[in-house]
Amino acid sequence: MASNNTNSVGFVETRTIRVVEREIPLRLECGKTLGPIDVAYETYGQLNEAGDNAVLICHALSGNAHVAGYNHAEDKKPGWWEGMVGPGKGIDTSKYFVICSNFLGGCSGTTGPCSMNPETGRPYGLDFPIITIADMVRVQKLLLDKLSVRHLLAVVGGSIGGMQVLQWAIAYPEMMDAAIPIATTTHLGAQSIAFDAVGRSAILADANFANGHYHNGQIPSHGLAIARMIGHITYLSEQGMRQKFGRQLRGAEKYSYDFHSEFAVETYLNHQGQSFVDRFDANSYLYITKAADYFDLPRDYGSLEEAFAHVQARFLVVSFSSDWLFTPEQSEAMVDALVANGKDVSFCNIASSYGHDAFLLEDGTLGGFIANFLKASHRPSHAAQRQWRERPALASGGRPRLVLPSHDAPEMSEVPGQDALAAEEQGQDALATVGGPHFHVKRRFSRFEQAQRARVDYELIGSLIEPGSRVLDVGCGDGALLVKLRADKKIQGKGIEVDQDLVVDCVGRGIAIIQRDIERGLGSYVDKSFDYVILSQTVQTIKDPERVFQELLRVGRRVIVSFPNFGHWRCRLQLLWTGKVPVTRQLPFRWYNTPNIHCLSLRDFEEFCAKLGVAIERRIPLARTSPHPVRFGPNLFAEQAIYVTSRAARNV
Amino acid sequence: MASNNTNSVGFVETRTIRVVEREIPLRLECGKTLGPIDVAYETYGQLNEAGDNAVLICHALSGNAHVAGYNHAEDKKPGWWEGMVGPGKGIDTSKYFVICSNFLGGCSGTTGPCSMNPETGRPYGLDFPIITIADMVRVQKLLLDKLSVRHLLAVVGGSIGGMQVLQWAIAYPEMMDAAIPIATTTHLGAQSIAFDAVGRSAILADANFANGHYHNGQIPSHGLAIARMIGHITYLSEQGMRQKFGRQLRGAEKYSYDFHSEFAVETYLNHQGQSFVDRFDANSYLYITKAADYFDLPRDYGSLEEAFAHVQARFLVVSFSSDWLFTPEQSEAMVDALVANGKDVSFCNIASSYGHDAFLLEDGTLGGFIANFLKASHRPSHAAQRQWRERPALASGGRPRLVLPSHDAPEMSEVPGQDALAAEEQGQDALATVGGPHFHVKRRFSRFEQAQRARVDYELIGSLIEPGSRVLDVGCGDGALLVKLRADKKIQGKGIEVDQDLVVDCVGRGIAIIQRDIERGLGSYVDKSFDYVILSQTVQTIKDPERVFQELLRVGRRVIVSFPNFGHWRCRLQLLWTGKVPVTRQLPFRWYNTPNIHCLSLRDFEEFCAKLGVAIERRIPLARTSPHPVRFGPNLFAEQAIYVTSRAARNV
Repeated sequence: MASNNTNSVGFVETRTIRVVEREIPLRLECGKTLGPIDVAYETYGQLNEAGDNAVLICHALSGNAHVAGYNHAEDKKPGWWEGMVGPGKGIDTSKYFVICSNFLGGCSGTTGPCSMNPETGRPYGLDFPIITIADMVRVQKLLLDKLSVRHLLAVVGGSIGGMQVLQWAIAYPEMMDAAIPIATTTHLGAQSIAFDAVGRSAILADANFANGHYHNGQIPSHGLAIARMIGHITYLSEQGMRQKFGRQLRGAEKYSYDFHSEFAVETYLNHQGQSFVDRFDANSYLYITKAADYFDLPRDYGSLEEAFAHVQARFLVVSFSSDWLFTPEQSEAMVDALVANGKDVSFCNIASSYGHDAFLLEDGTLGGFIANFLKASHRPSHAAQRQWRERPALASGGRPRLVLPSHDAPEMSEVPGQDALAAEEQGQDALATVGGPHFHVKRRFSRFEQAQRARVDYELIGSLIEPGSRVLDVGCGDGALLVKLRADKKIQGKGIEVDQDLVVDCVGRGIAIIQRDIERGLGSYVDKSFDYVILSQTVQTIKDPERVFQELLRVGRRVIVSFPNFGHWRCRLQLLWTGKVPVTRQLPFRWYNTPNIHCLSLRDFEEFCAKLGVAIERRIPLARTSPHPVRFGPNLFAEQAIYVTSRAARNV
Repeated sequence: MASNNTNSVGFVETRTIRVVEREIPLRLECGKTLGPIDVAYETYGQLNEAGDNAVLICHALSGNAHVAGYNHAEDKKPGWWEGMVGPGKGIDTSKYFVICSNFLGGCSGTTGPCSMNPETGRPYGLDFPIITIADMVRVQKLLLDKLSVRHLLAVVGGSIGGMQVLQWAIAYPEMMDAAIPIATTTHLGAQSIAFDAVGRSAILADANFANGHYHNGQIPSHGLAIARMIGHITYLSEQGMRQKFGRQLRGAEKYSYDFHSEFAVETYLNHQGQSFVDRFDANSYLYITKAADYFDLPRDYGSLEEAFAHVQARFLVVSFSSDWLFTPEQSEAMVDALVANGKDVSFCNIASSYGHDAFLLEDGTLGGFIANFLKASHRPSHAAQRQWRERPALASGGRPRLVLPSHDAPEMSEVPGQDALAAEEQGQDALATVGGPHFHVKRRFSRFEQAQRARVDYELIGSLIEPGSRVLDVGCGDGALLVKLRADKKIQGKGIEVDQDLVVDCVGRGIAIIQRDIERGLGSYVDKSFDYVILSQTVQTIKDPERVFQELLRVGRRVIVSFPNFGHWRCRLQLLWTGKVPVTRQLPFRWYNTPNIHCLSLRDFEEFCAKLGVAIERRIPLARTSPHPVRFGPNLFAEQAIYVTSRAARNV
């Protein structure tokens, strides 16, 4: 809840503009026509001369055009996404021109069921035609045309706003560089439809509803409040509700033994229901939830893969771990379909207890992701890469190593993770600051991470990769290897990483990065969609290395694997003479605390490849003190090894 | 949904009996009095002469006294738990005398808010006093008094029925042998209260509600239907709804573009809501959900531990994996509190996609558990144990082994798992049949399980244990070792096992068995609550052996650990000469498919103990072909080892 009001956009005005005239009405997806259509919108920041810095924000069910700042001096609350939008914030209004409009069917200035029906002279009510997410997006496009915004850097939105983002990317692929769908889904599941349906039933059954023409009498406040209360439960997580309310009673120690609301959570929900009635229209609630229920990209396009076949935007898909309305799994399905199409997609499942509402509350973490992604999408990413350079091989027998940019590269010094790497080179625990100036996420590299990284020889792996290749780095950390390969070899690199903090680093480096545990497999990646898949110092930590390795060989033409050699003479002699499980520089852990849950030697790995019918194209056994491969007795003298393997004919 | 109508109780009659007279009313927990109170009930089967075979069933929110069979020839549906209750079923009416009554506040014959208020001559409505779960249980006790049932073999119930089970065990500890709370909780969390509160709001806001006095006019059908629809969503799991309904439209291919219910899930919920209105009373819905919201054992007794301090019943706690209303975690908290009190408690979290409703639908699996538990609770469990006997040590160097009962032990041939063990002795894959005749759950022992078991030397571990000890067997499988120790050494044995099929075997053997992954720790077990904790052939498969071992040492005075020795000469020489990770009889897996995620030798384990300050009281290094310990060079020549460790002073 890091709402930061010191950097507000200040006073803003909601404007209204007519985008469709009555005489030339808009044909809607349901087949009916609608006109006139007015749209309420706000803008913040300035469109730059190149016209490439416009960011469109799409709001969710109960939102409106008033995203940030204050409309009036007496406003008690700022706009609904104040924590995210403003100077120096996740969507930085000092850099970007931000637009948000109330969507079609809403009740905050844009034409909707409470607008005047020109044919009857009274509000539409249920005479308003059923609208869809696609209709909303078409009206937003008409607004941008009116505002002469011809290109969008990004379209951003959460929940139903995220559905609009997806629809934008599909409907107007050339018009936008980046899409950021947050806490959303490509179609509602049965449970979400059920909740919506019960909410609508409560409104429709309200004695005051009067078939939607309640505008001159009592409004269906009971029904709308019930609908909102149901919705609100689905926006919070069970864990979040437990932490916030538990079984607290409101201002009492004893049960009242009646039916007044007495538990704190009851009172809270009642309040949410009542205050919603004061600011929202029951008909709009019906139309918007119906539009959400109808949203179904797989149905509309034959399949999710086909839906995304022609999108051009880079995607940053974000879900929240405790969101049970639009779940992380639903976001992952979206990511899978984009991956299957070979699109540029990054994904993060942000750890949060706020449930679905996290997209409004996790300003800090989410803001870091969005800021990094917008920056990487706005600035051609190769500009940054050039500033990575090499340091010559160390004189005293050291191998060439990845070197960090010097202080004359101010752009890059904003990229998180470097300081960490620098400190790591000095063998220290490192604290890294992630995200822009308002998003400080501190993390400490574990000893294990350091040990892992110290072992990886980026130079040697780099030397094995052909220029211009497509590379997938599994367990890519902060993306340093991919950035280097992109600079040196002009590769197209993608990454998979499980750690949220490292994922945000990768996003900032413009890498298509997917947060995933490799044990879950690579389901959606097309066969042979990469020239190289890299699995560096990880195979020994995987629960089911056979299944994972098969997956890597499926998606990559070649798989580059490196691991510590359990067959090294030190290991052998330690076991032989001491009768203890070996502890070496490459295997620095004790039996009870090692992350290495499998031990293997070069020979073990080679037999494993033979069993799987995998060809070993190259083998680079390495001792610690030399960059040159071990030539004699590699299984005895190599401390680690790098293998290039493939399903092709053996040609070692 | 294995409702089995071929073994129905047939035609049954719901009887009504007055348990409280108007003149001597019952004082309720809320402070008010109520009288008269009539109770509707049904019974099935016969109370035996010993009077020790009565089973009380407590129903849930929308249930009633009519558990099984048919009241009338024209009944289309049998009672609400027909799949569970009947001859040969989970609750076998040919063995047990089954009683169920409609609870206080209900609307199916027992006094509730739709009963006539003797003071006004019209139905109580909201003049009915607020009732609690404890009040319901007191009225059930009064019914049993009237029926001259003085002892209960068991009290069984799911959901709100489970709350009554818990209340029974606390309120009348001497009166019952066994408690089977299913899919229930000791207190509702904020989310569950929220759902109840919204449902009540819908009823209270219905224009027809008339402060509960709707009996002469229109009933609040809209509100009650909305409440039921909300409830119904919480009874199903997301997964279950997705599988059953998905996004199917009802009898249409295209959207209707209106607000009629068109998705199959909408139609289903509408139907549920409407049919509920026809059979249930809105006031009862208010009172029962309020009773559920008020149920809070930790609040009533100071803590959950204190609530269970004086219970005497054996507990079988059952949850369902996809139940998000009363979650497995809530059942585990209950189990933890019982464990902390040293009570006889078994727990299983049954894998199911049916959500909360699983307690009504998983007849097969749940029936197997209940049948086994009732049998073990009814028949003194040591009777069964005597029939386990030993076979003399094998002539050809074999160690003495656990032997199976012969065919002249017909009682024991019902105990599942034996056939499996017998087949296992012959080195075959084994199929075991679990549960009573109607509950066939087949399973195949994995190669790993067999290998594990083949390695365990029950006799040797048995020889280390003092008679009369308290023993916890972690990863106890089907409980064979505990059964043997109970017979031979008269120990008090408890088990922990992760596999559901093995847990049901243990339940049938009368072992207090908790389904749990040992990696989760032993949180609630009191320090030193066991004389011995056994961890047989498992330490090398645990992710965090250090933490687990510390936990075992906390709860046990002594910990007996056995594991395969990675320091055996074969391992050493294999690594030395072949440069491959060893594969031996004791370690029969390859590096990529081994469940042994840690390698350790005797020396490794001893250093580990030294580091943790743990004393090694005995060490039994074992070669495969001899029952005698390896005397010379144990770390070289032992294939496995058994250690007795403790926090006490070293006395090897």
